[in-house]
Amino acid sequence: MYCLLKLVPLFLAVAVCNGWLFGDFVGKQKEQDEISLWPLPQKFQSSAVAFKLSPASFQIVHAKQSSAGPSCSLLENAFRRYELHSPLFTFEPVLCYKRFCSLCVDELSIDEPSAVLKAANVWGALRGLETFSQLVYEDYYGVNNINKTDISDFPRFAHRGILLDSSRHFLPLKVILLGHRTPLPLLKSNWDSVYHWGAYHPFTHVYTPSDVKMVIEFARMRGIRVIPEFDTPGHTESWGNGIKDLLTPCYSGSSPSGTFGPVNPILNSSYDFMTQFFKEISTVFPDAYIHLGGDEVDFRCWESNPDIQKFMAQQGFGKDYSKLESFYIQRLLDIVAATKKGYMVWQEVFDNGVKLKADTQIHVWKGRPQYQDEMGQVTAAGFRALLSTPWYLNRISYGQDWVNIYKADPQNFTGTDAQKKLVIGGEACLWGEYVDATNLTPRLWPRASAVAERLWSDKSVTDVGNAYNRLVQHRCRMVKRGIPAEPLFVGHCRQEYKGL
Amino acid sequence: MYCLLKLVPLFLAVAVCNGWLFGDFVGKQKEQDEISLWPLPQKFQSSAVAFKLSPASFQIVHAKQSSAGPSCSLLENAFRRYELHSPLFTFEPVLCYKRFCSLCVDELSIDEPSAVLKAANVWGALRGLETFSQLVYEDYYGVNNINKTDISDFPRFAHRGILLDSSRHFLPLKVILLGHRTPLPLLKSNWDSVYHWGAYHPFTHVYTPSDVKMVIEFARMRGIRVIPEFDTPGHTESWGNGIKDLLTPCYSGSSPSGTFGPVNPILNSSYDFMTQFFKEISTVFPDAYIHLGGDEVDFRCWESNPDIQKFMAQQGFGKDYSKLESFYIQRLLDIVAATKKGYMVWQEVFDNGVKLKADTQIHVWKGRPQYQDEMGQVTAAGFRALLSTPWYLNRISYGQDWVNIYKADPQNFTGTDAQKKLVIGGEACLWGEYVDATNLTPRLWPRASAVAERLWSDKSVTDVGNAYNRLVQHRCRMVKRGIPAEPLFVGHCRQEYKGL
Repeated sequence: MYCLLKLVPLFLAVAVCNGWLFGDFVGKQKEQDEISLWPLPQKFQSSAVAFKLSPASFQIVHAKQSSAGPSCSLLENAFRRYELHSPLFTFEPVLCYKRFCSLCVDELSIDEPSAVLKAANVWGALRGLETFSQLVYEDYYGVNNINKTDISDFPRFAHRGILLDSSRHFLPLKVILLGHRTPLPLLKSNWDSVYHWGAYHPFTHVYTPSDVKMVIEFARMRGIRVIPEFDTPGHTESWGNGIKDLLTPCYSGSSPSGTFGPVNPILNSSYDFMTQFFKEISTVFPDAYIHLGGDEVDFRCWESNPDIQKFMAQQGFGKDYSKLESFYIQRLLDIVAATKKGYMVWQEVFDNGVKLKADTQIHVWKGRPQYQDEMGQVTAAGFRALLSTPWYLNRISYGQDWVNIYKADPQNFTGTDAQKKLVIGGEACLWGEYVDATNLTPRLWPRASAVAERLWSDKSVTDVGNAYNRLVQHRCRMVKRGIPAEPLFVGHCRQEYKGL
Repeated sequence: MYCLLKLVPLFLAVAVCNGWLFGDFVGKQKEQDEISLWPLPQKFQSSAVAFKLSPASFQIVHAKQSSAGPSCSLLENAFRRYELHSPLFTFEPVLCYKRFCSLCVDELSIDEPSAVLKAANVWGALRGLETFSQLVYEDYYGVNNINKTDISDFPRFAHRGILLDSSRHFLPLKVILLGHRTPLPLLKSNWDSVYHWGAYHPFTHVYTPSDVKMVIEFARMRGIRVIPEFDTPGHTESWGNGIKDLLTPCYSGSSPSGTFGPVNPILNSSYDFMTQFFKEISTVFPDAYIHLGGDEVDFRCWESNPDIQKFMAQQGFGKDYSKLESFYIQRLLDIVAATKKGYMVWQEVFDNGVKLKADTQIHVWKGRPQYQDEMGQVTAAGFRALLSTPWYLNRISYGQDWVNIYKADPQNFTGTDAQKKLVIGGEACLWGEYVDATNLTPRLWPRASAVAERLWSDKSVTDVGNAYNRLVQHRCRMVKRGIPAEPLFVGHCRQEYKGL
């Protein structure tokens, strides 16, 4: 029998072969429990009819209708990755990548002798392949099985990100990209959308341009966008080492104290530097958006500086230093807009009344856990909103804290349907004060997976008990794939006794 | 010049060579900051006089006064370990191991051309070698240096342990013993004394007798005792799978519900089993003590069982099931006493008024964080006390929670000097509900190091700022030695940029 897994532009055909029905239904039911899709697809119908997969004859091919050819490196790359996770997966590349699509729809139907995956584009094909891989389960004899299944799937929100902070602790490139403690390979099955790279220290040359390129390409191959954050005017202490006069000199009484504060907003040279800097950044990072920060500006240094005081008086700002902050941000946004990039900012920029482009994305992080008012206000003003408040994964507590992470819903606020539509998603943040390469992965996973399902699956998917059962299995799958995701509670993975 | 590191029974001579004074004092001061002893020795005097160590000529030898010969595998083993950490360390084995000593005194004095370590026995020699290794620092050119130093050292408490729980999650042997995520190799520099192995499941055959032997020998080579805990009559659910009638059948109304509770205390067969079991255990584990548990007994099953009710009436226990628990524990203690082993028990056994042998060690774990009353009562009754209440490391919170761990003092309760002397130390506990091989090491270290210094160093060593600086360096040393200890706060280790 001809056995194939077809990959098509709009039709990806996953072929199964030698399918036959199990006699032992009890045993099979138990094995079926091992199937745990994460995140849960939008529509999912599975039957007890199981097909066996033969490594010898199983393959993935593109269907006749496929528009792609073997030159698509993205799919070729995906093929090799799946080979690593399971020697089953061999498929021919079909579709060359198009522009990133945030709301791909894919359909997967598995029947004898082949399974067919229809995807709007290559990103949908990647997601569908991951779903297919999660459907495969081992029976008692170690044979891979897959059940007759129909799936129709798409993400609920377009923006499903994680934020990694490589400024508080330097994260070696291999921690970001490869190896045992890597989050990025996991983004594929858990995230799919955005990797928000919090790098405050562009001038320490810790990440070279070629490092950055490698991360971006590595992510693109997995259908992940990389958005860098360059946070100003606060959080810029290290910038001062490289750029003369960029930071505000703080005063102690009538003389400079020798310390420095936020970016100096009253010098033209500061804006000249930002113009040059963001021009370069806009070419290095291909994504349409840049995160400009704008959070947690400490006004004390500005207050101490007589030149700043004079400028405040000239501008008629009185003693309201948030007006000075807005003055700076306003000019910065104009600079970045000139690079043709869109921008994301932390909520303070919106809260302070800075004039923003219509396509600005406001990143809500304050008011833990009462973020609802802010989401209402941002969307009422017509801006797109991203939620992070309930998903600061660096914050830890004893016990199953994934439950509250899972329960938070970014559309859970008072507002019109139009406002709800302005919620484009969210990001799980792992700030680095207490996190580095030694503990990053078990702190991130599987807690970040809880956010992943909230942002992907239907709004109605809220059953914590059901999620627990699937997440336990999904966590075991991560461990099996070499990612040391920490346990949810007592118990063990099927593969654990073989050693870790 | 003849350069040697002498290892002596009572005199271990650490030789340094080609010593010369630095010209650049500023540079040297900075390098000296890299020296961070952990735990802090009892007496420590260092000077700015630095000696360089040459890998070519540096060696450790035993002094003429040494009583030991090359047949001592323990020291030979230690030699190889130190070779791994630093190619500098080559020394000849000197002293064959004697009985474990809990209050070894060692003195280390470093001067040109040799450093001399005097130790009461091999355990003290091991501690002294670790201290020596911590004194060595790299200068700007990568040359190893050591400063002229005099140290006199001994631990404040005899019992300095960690408890690992391999029952909630099975910990593969290699996680316990070797490899990147291993705690045991770290016990040497952090602990020195006791590894408390919480294994509730002796009948799953997950750890074979040869596994157990390997762990015990591995620990002995590092001067660490291994104490197993076999917790009864509660926490015994898994025992029931292997031993018929061991557990109490629970009732629902007038008929058995099919579930089982604590060990059945009214059957002679239960005691026959325990006699046989602890006889075997007492031969497998060489340590003089066994931990018998005795915590958290849930009375509901006993209450439901009509046979138990009848027995309660016969014994005149009324409705007080703690009397039945005491009845069981009393018989168990007699069984264990017959094996000539001493025993440790959780505080409930003392609280319930069970008659205990005079050498019983009471393990205080309740009343978090108000453990002081219990410590007072236990020692007032003349029993030796071990503290764990403030050191449940499985409990986590956001931020620098090592500070409260560090501040807790086991002698901080109202009592006489005689009572204070009955405090023999403590144990850091890492229970396994949310911990397995994926996150064990970064959760344990460096937080357990904070307990280590509290139990080793003088009572007066309480400066948190000073401890922070040393612990940051000690944590970097752990990372350098291959142990992924998590960061205390922002910053980086010197070696970090070489990758992890």
